[in-house]
Amino acid sequence: MNIESLTFSLADLCREVAQGQRRSIARALSIVEDGGAAAAEVVRLLFPASGTAHVIGITGSPGVGKSTLVDALISRIREDNLSVAVLAIDPTSPFSGGALLGDRVRMQSHTLDKSVFIRSMANRGHTGGTAAATGDAIRVLEAAGFDLIIIETVGVGQSELAIAQTADTTVIVLMPGSGDDIQAIKSGIMEIGDVFVVNKGDLPGANKTYSEILAAMELTRTSSAWAPPVSLATAETEEGVEQVWENILSHRRFLERSGELAVRRTQKMQAELEELVGDLARSCLQDSFRRCARVQELLDSLARKTIDPHAAASEIFRAIFST
Amino acid sequence: MNIESLTFSLADLCREVAQGQRRSIARALSIVEDGGAAAAEVVRLLFPASGTAHVIGITGSPGVGKSTLVDALISRIREDNLSVAVLAIDPTSPFSGGALLGDRVRMQSHTLDKSVFIRSMANRGHTGGTAAATGDAIRVLEAAGFDLIIIETVGVGQSELAIAQTADTTVIVLMPGSGDDIQAIKSGIMEIGDVFVVNKGDLPGANKTYSEILAAMELTRTSSAWAPPVSLATAETEEGVEQVWENILSHRRFLERSGELAVRRTQKMQAELEELVGDLARSCLQDSFRRCARVQELLDSLARKTIDPHAAASEIFRAIFST
Repeated sequence: MNIESLTFSLADLCREVAQGQRRSIARALSIVEDGGAAAAEVVRLLFPASGTAHVIGITGSPGVGKSTLVDALISRIREDNLSVAVLAIDPTSPFSGGALLGDRVRMQSHTLDKSVFIRSMANRGHTGGTAAATGDAIRVLEAAGFDLIIIETVGVGQSELAIAQTADTTVIVLMPGSGDDIQAIKSGIMEIGDVFVVNKGDLPGANKTYSEILAAMELTRTSSAWAPPVSLATAETEEGVEQVWENILSHRRFLERSGELAVRRTQKMQAELEELVGDLARSCLQDSFRRCARVQELLDSLARKTIDPHAAASEIFRAIFST
Repeated sequence: MNIESLTFSLADLCREVAQGQRRSIARALSIVEDGGAAAAEVVRLLFPASGTAHVIGITGSPGVGKSTLVDALISRIREDNLSVAVLAIDPTSPFSGGALLGDRVRMQSHTLDKSVFIRSMANRGHTGGTAAATGDAIRVLEAAGFDLIIIETVGVGQSELAIAQTADTTVIVLMPGSGDDIQAIKSGIMEIGDVFVVNKGDLPGANKTYSEILAAMELTRTSSAWAPPVSLATAETEEGVEQVWENILSHRRFLERSGELAVRRTQKMQAELEELVGDLARSCLQDSFRRCARVQELLDSLARKTIDPHAAASEIFRAIFST
């Protein structure tokens, strides 16, 4: 397929995305996930229609019940007659190269609802571009006209930071016991959450965890005008989900009233731009690294300990970038 | 302080590290953690003495009891009269810029033992260099003469991949229930573990989790000559810790006998070298990004949607690297 016909069919595809055709949305998502020239073209075509949805990030440790909460939120959102797309981002092994989880099992109940779209997306691991790839996927879903976009991701540390960089409202899900509360404080996620949920509220110790999170909030409280609300929920029975939804809406109103929404989106765009430029530099670098004949010699010297790693890296860097 | 006197005092410091002086070890670790020219100099001085210890990575989700297991392993290792250093890597908030956890509370019992050294190290988040910074910290501890170095880290996904890139033997800790087993398979960590431990073996469902992990091992089994052993433990009471230690030693023997140790270390050095060159490129890029006048104009165009993010990134990349 030559580039003109490819460009032509991508334009068709993007028109179908704008009409909300599900198969085309799925295909466009695959294209932006794969990256490269086709992804850039799809984003170019869809970008003018982007920036319209409220993007909700939902994150927390494995096993806290994020999927169940998302499932319950979808039902609640549909009661308000809003359309919603879910991107479930799975950590991926760099060895197998693909997500082991397919489309969500739990969410089968919504598959016949045309105003709900659910998609698993692989997290491409180390090689960067998570926030940028997620940003592009969000653009596809916005162009398709969804009112709300939920980004669900597992993990601590980096994946949560990436979600906070992408979402308008970041929801942190915790559960009673298993040291989750302390770990949350340790890993610094208290500072990125806009809304907190202690899920599995029917477990013993739920009230204790709830109080500890509240206390931790006081400690890490920033000067921001928004005090992140904490609520108890049992997503399994939908108990407390109404309050979570209220808290999300309330945060949205705060963002709009305070002008914070525009400020955040500019910051996010800048961060994404820096990431994209970094990705371009990285792929340029990786090519050069593999082609650089000096690398193998330096690895031999390192094995013999006649040079140290930092000196070797400086030499390679100079060799690549002074050409 | 001028550079010569700094270099001179770093040489003194490194001599004291080689003599095993604890305060100097701690200072050298701070220097390599901070990075920069002083870190490179310390590594240059200590590198010839490195590569001597067995590096054990211990990882798993929050709350599985990694610290308790490490504590129990230290006691077991000391029975064999081996010296051991522990680096506990905490996920750090990019906002507060420091680890909230200080030196480990649980491990106080070992603080009077001169053959045990415990240190918390901040994970510097996004900005890369985790594996390289950990690699440098390991070099300091090796130069100080420790027989074993344990790297403990929380998390799923990227932090675990970083540990597998650094350790000779990677121990994955899981616990019964809370979906840990399924999450482990999902996140691809089955493939990076050399030794598996189902901790909290006294909890209900421990045997079920144990069987599920064994079954998952069969599924993800690679052609490698090493079949990762799985064992049940209750680190709190030290039950099963002997078996974990046996499994670690057995993996070490496998690495040496098969020649795999040398192969892995060369691969790791290559990965670290690539990361170091990437770090140099990234910091060069960040400087340029901030100085590039076109960035602000492009952000305005992005807000007006007259350009798309990929096109903007390409333009900045060309502006920075064509100079």
